[in-house]
Amino acid sequence: MSEILKGIGASDGVAIAPVYSLEEPDLSFDDKSIEVGQEDAEVEKFKAAFNQSKVEITKIRNHAEQTVGPEHAAIFDAHLLVLDDPEFLGPIESHIRNDQKSAPQALLETRDQFVAIFDSMDDEYMKERAADIKDVSKRALANMLGRELPSPSKIDTPVVIVAEDLTPSDTAQLDKNFVKGFVTNVGGRTSHSAIMSRSLEIPAVVGTKNITELAQVGGDIIVDGSSGEVILNPSEEEVLVYKDKEARVAEEKVELQKLVDEPSKTMDDVTVELAANIGTPDDLEGVKSNGAEAIGLYRTEFLYMGRNELPTEEEQYEAYSQVLKEMDGKPVVVRTLDIGGDKELPYLDLPNEMNPFLGFRAIRMTLDNQELFRTQLRALLRASQHGNLKIMFPMIATIDEFNRAKALLIEEKDKLVEEGEKVKEDIEVGIMIEIPSAAIIADQFAEVVDFFSIGTNDLIQYTMAADRMNESVSYLYQPYHPALLRLIKMVIDAAHKEGKWAGMCGEMAGDAHAIPLLLGLGLDEFSMSASSVLKARKQISGLKKTDMERLAARAVECKDTDEVLALVEEYVGRV
Amino acid sequence: MSEILKGIGASDGVAIAPVYSLEEPDLSFDDKSIEVGQEDAEVEKFKAAFNQSKVEITKIRNHAEQTVGPEHAAIFDAHLLVLDDPEFLGPIESHIRNDQKSAPQALLETRDQFVAIFDSMDDEYMKERAADIKDVSKRALANMLGRELPSPSKIDTPVVIVAEDLTPSDTAQLDKNFVKGFVTNVGGRTSHSAIMSRSLEIPAVVGTKNITELAQVGGDIIVDGSSGEVILNPSEEEVLVYKDKEARVAEEKVELQKLVDEPSKTMDDVTVELAANIGTPDDLEGVKSNGAEAIGLYRTEFLYMGRNELPTEEEQYEAYSQVLKEMDGKPVVVRTLDIGGDKELPYLDLPNEMNPFLGFRAIRMTLDNQELFRTQLRALLRASQHGNLKIMFPMIATIDEFNRAKALLIEEKDKLVEEGEKVKEDIEVGIMIEIPSAAIIADQFAEVVDFFSIGTNDLIQYTMAADRMNESVSYLYQPYHPALLRLIKMVIDAAHKEGKWAGMCGEMAGDAHAIPLLLGLGLDEFSMSASSVLKARKQISGLKKTDMERLAARAVECKDTDEVLALVEEYVGRV
Repeated sequence: MSEILKGIGASDGVAIAPVYSLEEPDLSFDDKSIEVGQEDAEVEKFKAAFNQSKVEITKIRNHAEQTVGPEHAAIFDAHLLVLDDPEFLGPIESHIRNDQKSAPQALLETRDQFVAIFDSMDDEYMKERAADIKDVSKRALANMLGRELPSPSKIDTPVVIVAEDLTPSDTAQLDKNFVKGFVTNVGGRTSHSAIMSRSLEIPAVVGTKNITELAQVGGDIIVDGSSGEVILNPSEEEVLVYKDKEARVAEEKVELQKLVDEPSKTMDDVTVELAANIGTPDDLEGVKSNGAEAIGLYRTEFLYMGRNELPTEEEQYEAYSQVLKEMDGKPVVVRTLDIGGDKELPYLDLPNEMNPFLGFRAIRMTLDNQELFRTQLRALLRASQHGNLKIMFPMIATIDEFNRAKALLIEEKDKLVEEGEKVKEDIEVGIMIEIPSAAIIADQFAEVVDFFSIGTNDLIQYTMAADRMNESVSYLYQPYHPALLRLIKMVIDAAHKEGKWAGMCGEMAGDAHAIPLLLGLGLDEFSMSASSVLKARKQISGLKKTDMERLAARAVECKDTDEVLALVEEYVGRV
Repeated sequence: MSEILKGIGASDGVAIAPVYSLEEPDLSFDDKSIEVGQEDAEVEKFKAAFNQSKVEITKIRNHAEQTVGPEHAAIFDAHLLVLDDPEFLGPIESHIRNDQKSAPQALLETRDQFVAIFDSMDDEYMKERAADIKDVSKRALANMLGRELPSPSKIDTPVVIVAEDLTPSDTAQLDKNFVKGFVTNVGGRTSHSAIMSRSLEIPAVVGTKNITELAQVGGDIIVDGSSGEVILNPSEEEVLVYKDKEARVAEEKVELQKLVDEPSKTMDDVTVELAANIGTPDDLEGVKSNGAEAIGLYRTEFLYMGRNELPTEEEQYEAYSQVLKEMDGKPVVVRTLDIGGDKELPYLDLPNEMNPFLGFRAIRMTLDNQELFRTQLRALLRASQHGNLKIMFPMIATIDEFNRAKALLIEEKDKLVEEGEKVKEDIEVGIMIEIPSAAIIADQFAEVVDFFSIGTNDLIQYTMAADRMNESVSYLYQPYHPALLRLIKMVIDAAHKEGKWAGMCGEMAGDAHAIPLLLGLGLDEFSMSASSVLKARKQISGLKKTDMERLAARAVECKDTDEVLALVEEYVGRV
């Protein structure tokens, strides 16, 4: 008989194929201290395991480059860096030598320390760093213990992978021709494997808790990435139903694809801009294939990560120029470095903080590290000639911070002009609105900035005083709360009063429940994952702006989130 | 020749006397691992030092009870608890046994771990816990190393104490008859020694950085606790100037004292309420001697701290009743337990959090620990018959949270009535406004609550997204920022529209720059340290409400803090 499980839908689509189990080897070991005098031998053991891991990762890297392309292979360069990083190697050796820990124990303690820092960060790229370190550590541990890790690259028939979780090395080895979907025990919508499933467009369900216990290798399995449902040993009837659904999903995709070159327009002919968020030039392909009209957020953190020193002006210039050129005159909003506090860079000496989300990050850090900041500004200014660049400062709380950042920009611009460099004249300079104070005095900001982009992830967490990574208070992470809608309204109204534009680059901008409200509040630009753009375009084409304005006017007067959601449903039906 | 130093004025007043140095013994030691097999001996050593410390602390405790009174002696009961606390003793023994640490090293590592947790908390009482642990650890360390700590209780001639810092044991031994003032190298306005100096009314300057290097024992020293100035080896002329100032301060005190029974009224006859914040019934004396008209914030955390189990309903009932009775019909606003997240109680299993200020605290925790919460509510309801009780919930972000808390209150009230207990009928129930969302939808809250009390310490930190305990971003802790003033205005206007009252119980309520603004914004109740009440009353008696309204209307339109402060000066002169 068939068995139905419910997990978290990570990547849309339906897959039907036999189960392939990515079995974990047993990596347990005795946590015994080593004898005094054994330290050298234990350090040798740890180094040998790291060297062996480097050889294996290099092989996987080369295989991935062949099968899934260089952009997915790049992650292994980061892994190889971890294996050479003195910040990571140092504590392991110190645990062995000074605390008489065994090599496996020293490795795990160091890994846990690093993962604790990275894992709880409000940033997909940072979370990937945690996944990287776990991944590399697992391989090194297996090598210390003489055990072998599974190899998804060996799969050569159509299957659905079932696993505790997928590591970056696993996902990089996936070949879409054979891996039709995957299901994991752990993870949420923003875990590494979930992000990769969307990027690879493989249907996936994560967080089922116990799929590895229930699934039988070789038995059939249906994965519905939209509903989060997984069916083990489906009946013939169920297979038919899902084959049908698979066909409809494919059809829908074709339908959506027709909107690639269409404008983003409401039923009553109001045009908005649908933009995409990117992290590296590699993401441009998705931007184009999904018909995004602009880049609403280019996160520049990635340029600074997975390396041992600051990126040079030249390296940054190359990256920014490539994006600007490829976007061919379409707007590209580049956010200056948003790092610090909880997000550490090994080559920057940043403080450890009790409350990193309320700490020394983003503009607060860059205003205090002017050389680093000026280098980025110069690279941006030089790249500006290649397209339609807009510069955005993150975590602005006061007008003084904006003025200081802008003054540095103007200084660097004047220097460049004096040096004979070409710099575009009319670069728009705006700010992220992610701190309540900035939203509350948006009217004052509107007089000095060229645009706003509302960063909802942080704005929600500060407005509700609730760390969204903290499960105990996650019930307070309420994107549709009237307090938040009022802040958004203040920002949009303030922008329009001064003839400026207001966008949004948080997750909320691509959310089907939020889009009607945001449209009604007057948002000009919606920036989201590239993969959400076509759906948003379709949804907007079915809405009337005037109706949505009525919806929004009522929503800001609601008492709570439930009332707002009920109202959305009243206006646009179940979404 | 005289030498002038500038520190942070911690406690007003002038003192002139010879320097007495509270010299630190050298507590350094070699950080060597112990040999395997030495663990038992080292554990013995650690236990002997703890026992010796208990004997000494008991002596100090008894001496303090004689000289400075039982309320200052009580702190040593907390110290004795630390020396018996298995949560503290366990890790020390484990460091010795499992990591081969020496007793002093094991003690310091455990101390640092505890201090790190307590020290960065936004709560005076919690900070004192960190000071307690440091204090106790220092004594235990001295005993491990066979060295002696200084004894301020031996002072029997008039002096000014000069020290690196004063520990709670030091301050508890101070005899005001002889100790005329003190000056320290470290600390800020909210450090333990600063708080104690105000409580003991001893002029003090903290944070001079190097007073211990510069001051000569026996040489004369002038301490000006208002300006933060310290003069070493003053000239005769300087002594005369400061004797004069000392006299004026004394006169002013007498002048202020005349206002004890006066109403708190502006020049144009508008009356407001000046209330005091308290932590324990011990604070009532200061409330009365300073003529506070109410208790605007009774922090109940102290009832739960320095002990090994939850306080019983009876214990709480006694404490609340005592305060209500002694206040004799004047309003007493009791805040339900505001603890959790960063503020740990050894007998509650609370999570460790990445961002405790955005975490599981206050109402979030108590709604999830209903037994604990119901016990407090029952104690409050039963005590209500003895005075004018108002109940206030902390950290409310959504109306749902308030409704859930209020429902529990009503349930307990109904039960009590059924049990035949007397419960007052008209108890007002209000909320702290310390989260931006609550301020932004204050109009919605005003329909369901009886009053608001604005908690500025937290409200500022969330509105600016800046941890005020974090020095790197402390520049963003701006009480006069227009964004904050706008939120305060929203709250007060919303309250008045529904015929409710709005108070404030953050530090800002007693601040001479803020009072004109708050008066203009329409604040009804100002709750502050008892020692600030008379000064506030005097300031208010010199202001016209109508003028302040004009000031406030302009202040909310300012661009930044500097503009606001300039405006305050324009209206009320230099304060």
